[in-house]
Amino acid sequence: MALDVSTLLLPDLREMLQEKDREGLREFCEALHPATVADLLRTLPPEEAWLVLSHTSPQRQAEIFQYLPEAYQHEMINVAPRERLAAIIEAMDPDDRVDLLKSLDEELMEAILPLVARAEREDIRRLLQYPENSVGAVMTTDYVALPEDMTVGAALEQIRLLAPDRETIYYIYVVDKHRHLVGVATLRQLILARPQATLADIMTKDLIKVRVHEDKEKAAHILARYDLLALPVVDGEGRLVGIVTHDDVMDVLVEAATEDVHRLGGIEPLEESYLESPMLTVAWKRGTWLAILFAAELGTRHVLEWGEPIFQQLFLLYAFLPLIMSSGGNSGSQSATLITRALALGQLSPRDWWRVLWRESAMGTLLGVMLGALAVLEALIEADHALRLVPVVASTLAVVVLCGTLIGSLLPLVLRAFGMDPGIASSPFVASIMDVISTLVLVSVAHVVLVLSG
Amino acid sequence: MALDVSTLLLPDLREMLQEKDREGLREFCEALHPATVADLLRTLPPEEAWLVLSHTSPQRQAEIFQYLPEAYQHEMINVAPRERLAAIIEAMDPDDRVDLLKSLDEELMEAILPLVARAEREDIRRLLQYPENSVGAVMTTDYVALPEDMTVGAALEQIRLLAPDRETIYYIYVVDKHRHLVGVATLRQLILARPQATLADIMTKDLIKVRVHEDKEKAAHILARYDLLALPVVDGEGRLVGIVTHDDVMDVLVEAATEDVHRLGGIEPLEESYLESPMLTVAWKRGTWLAILFAAELGTRHVLEWGEPIFQQLFLLYAFLPLIMSSGGNSGSQSATLITRALALGQLSPRDWWRVLWRESAMGTLLGVMLGALAVLEALIEADHALRLVPVVASTLAVVVLCGTLIGSLLPLVLRAFGMDPGIASSPFVASIMDVISTLVLVSVAHVVLVLSG
Repeated sequence: MALDVSTLLLPDLREMLQEKDREGLREFCEALHPATVADLLRTLPPEEAWLVLSHTSPQRQAEIFQYLPEAYQHEMINVAPRERLAAIIEAMDPDDRVDLLKSLDEELMEAILPLVARAEREDIRRLLQYPENSVGAVMTTDYVALPEDMTVGAALEQIRLLAPDRETIYYIYVVDKHRHLVGVATLRQLILARPQATLADIMTKDLIKVRVHEDKEKAAHILARYDLLALPVVDGEGRLVGIVTHDDVMDVLVEAATEDVHRLGGIEPLEESYLESPMLTVAWKRGTWLAILFAAELGTRHVLEWGEPIFQQLFLLYAFLPLIMSSGGNSGSQSATLITRALALGQLSPRDWWRVLWRESAMGTLLGVMLGALAVLEALIEADHALRLVPVVASTLAVVVLCGTLIGSLLPLVLRAFGMDPGIASSPFVASIMDVISTLVLVSVAHVVLVLSG
Repeated sequence: MALDVSTLLLPDLREMLQEKDREGLREFCEALHPATVADLLRTLPPEEAWLVLSHTSPQRQAEIFQYLPEAYQHEMINVAPRERLAAIIEAMDPDDRVDLLKSLDEELMEAILPLVARAEREDIRRLLQYPENSVGAVMTTDYVALPEDMTVGAALEQIRLLAPDRETIYYIYVVDKHRHLVGVATLRQLILARPQATLADIMTKDLIKVRVHEDKEKAAHILARYDLLALPVVDGEGRLVGIVTHDDVMDVLVEAATEDVHRLGGIEPLEESYLESPMLTVAWKRGTWLAILFAAELGTRHVLEWGEPIFQQLFLLYAFLPLIMSSGGNSGSQSATLITRALALGQLSPRDWWRVLWRESAMGTLLGVMLGALAVLEALIEADHALRLVPVVASTLAVVVLCGTLIGSLLPLVLRAFGMDPGIASSPFVASIMDVISTLVLVSVAHVVLVLSG
C-alpha cells in the first residue's frame, strides 16, 4: 500500500537531507506519486520542505505542492521567497492555484500576483471573479480545444504538443471560429478514426455541458450521472470557458455530503477538518444552533406549566414524558433524514409531496401502533402501579409517532419548496419541535381520559 | 441541458414508434448519450423499450441498459426473450452485469447463464464470488495489460485493436510473464514517448494499487486521494486481476455517504431510493431502531420514579426536564456527528482520542456555561415563580452539556476501536443515552441543593 510505503521512506528522506544527497532528493521528488511526496514533506519543518523541493522542476514542485493540506501550504508560504512562490503558482493547475490564492489574505495575494507571468495572471483574475459555489469556482482552463475542420491526423499531432500542460487530453473539445462549443471527441475516437477524417466527422454532437454560473453540485451530479471524465463549461453565449474534471467533482461530492451530515447533526457545516477547525469557530457554529434549539424547547416548559393540574392528578404521568418525547423525536428524525438525503441525491422533489404524505402516514400509523403495543406489553410485564396510566401512554405514543413522521417528512419538502436548505430540518431541530408537540398531545389525551373517567 | 432535451424528445420518440420509423429509432439509440436514451426509455412500457432497442447493436443496447434503474431493468427482464437477454449480458461491462445478475433471483440467473458465451460466463462466475463490500465486487476485468518488453509503437498498435471493448485505454497496466503488476503507463506518456522505447522504460514503478479483498470504500478513498482515473486490483500474489474505475468510485462514495447519513438519523441504511424501497423493509429498518431506543428510554422512567420524592418537593422542576434533556442530547448529537464524519473521511482515528477528549472537554465547558447563562437570563426576564429553581437548572444544564459532548465524541471512537460501525452512535441513540444521564444529573443536583438549603 502506497500509504505504508511513505512512512517507511521517512528515515531515508531524513538521511538524504543530512547528507545533502542531491541526486537522491531529486529522485525522491520525481519517482513517487506527488501525493506520496506531499504526505512525507508535511512531516518536515516548512523550510526543509522547500529545500527538498528545490531539487526538482517548478512544474513538479507545483504538482507536489497541490497535494499538501491548506494549513501546511500556508506555513510554507510564510517562509518562502516571493519569486519562488510566484514560479510555483505559475506552474499550478488553474483551479488549484485560484483556491490557494483565495485562502490567502488580500495583501499577500496582491504582493505575489505582480510576480506571476501576465497570461497566468489574467487567467487567475478571470477565475477569481466566479462566486464560491459556482461551476466557475471549480473549473480549470487547461483543456484541449480544436477547430472543427481540423483532420484527425493534425489533431493528434497538436495533442502531442499540448499534452505536457493540459489537465486532460482524453477529451478534445471542438469549437467553431467564435469559440462556441459544437462537439466533443475522445482520444479513443481519434485513435480509431482515419487520419484524413475531420473532427466534425467523428465528434459527438449530443453535448452534455454546464453553464459557468450554475451550482457546482449540479455539475457534479451531471458528470456522475453520465460517467464522464470531464464536463465542458460554457458562458451565456455558449462559448467554451473551461472544464470541470472528475477529480474535482469527487471532492465536490464528498464536501457536499459532509455539509449535509453536519447540518443533520445540528451544526453549521465546518469548512476544515475536525482537528484543524479553530475552537472558537466550532463553538460559534455549534452554539448558535444550541441556543436556537434551547429557545424552541422553552415551549415545552410553558405547555407543562399549563398542564400542571393534570399532572398533579396523575402524578406519575410525568415519568413517561421523556419516553414519549423521544419516540416522537426519533420517528421525526428518521423521516427528516430519509427525505433530506433523497432530496440531496435528486431522487425526490417537492412535487412528490403527496407520495411522501401517503408513505409517511402509513409508516407513522404502523410504527405508532407498534410502539403503543410495546408500551402496553412493558406495563403488563412490570405490572406496576402505573398500570392505570397505560391507555393514556399507549394512545399518546401512537399519535406522537405519527406526528413525528409527518412533520419530519414534510418540513424538509416545505423548506426546499421555499428555496431554503432542507437540512435545517436536522434531527435535533425536529426533535425539539416534537418535544413541544408531544407534551401538548400528552396533556390533551390525559385531559380527555380524566374527563371520560369522570 | 441534457436533462431538459430529453423531455423535449419524448413526443418525437412516440411518433417514431407509431410510424415504425426504423432509421429514426436507430439514430435515437445511437446519437444521444446512453444515459439520455435510458431516461426516455423508462417512460415507456418495457415491451416498447425492447422494440426501440432492437434497432441498434447488442453493444449499444447494453450501454443503454446499464443506465436504467434496477427496478425498470427487472421489468424489462421479465418480458424479454432469454436469448436477447443473454446477448445484452455478454455485451455489458463486467462489473455492471455482475451487479445485475446478483439482483436477480437464483433460478432466473441459472436459466440465463448457460446462454452466455463461455469466456463471459467464466468471468461472471469469478466476479460473483467476491463478497458484497469488497473491491472485487466493484472492479471490472476490461482493462489493458501489456508485457514490459513491448515497445511503445507496438503498444499503441495493440491499444488501437483493444480500444473498442476496454473500459479505459488511458491507463496501460504493465505485467510480467506471470501477470504480476510491475508498472503503469498513461496513454499520454505513450503518445509523448519515442516509439522504440519499451514500456519498462517509460512506466511508473511507484504503483498505487489495492488488493481484491479489501473494502471498496478504501479503494474509493485511495483513488480520490491520488486523483486517478482507475486503480489496479491485485490478488494475494500481486497478480493483476482487475481495475476499479473513477465512475464506480464516485458511486461508492455517494452510497457510503448515504449509509452514514441514514445511520446518523437512526435508520438501518436503505439500499434503494426512498420512493422505491418496499414499505415493509423501511418499516423494519426504522422499527428495529425505534424499539431499541424505546427500550433505552425506559431507563428515564425508572430514574424519574426513583427521584419522585425530590419532584414532589420541587414540583415545577419536572417542567424543566425536557429543556435539560434536549440540551444534553443536542450537544451529544453535534459531537457524535462531527466525530463520525471525521472518522468516515479518514481525518481521525481512535488513536487521536486524547486530542478529541481535550477539544470536547473545552467545547462542552464553553457551551455548557453558555446554556446555563441563557437559562438564568430567561428566568430573570420572565421573573416567574420558578426563579428559585434557577440555580438547580443552570448548573444541571452546564453539567449535562459537558456530558453530552464527551459521550457523543468518545462513543464513536470506542465503537471504531472495537471494530464496530461508529455510525451506531446516531443522533437519536446519543439523545436517548443523554436523556437517562440528564435525569440522573437533575435529580442528583436537586438533591444536593435541597440538602444544602436544609
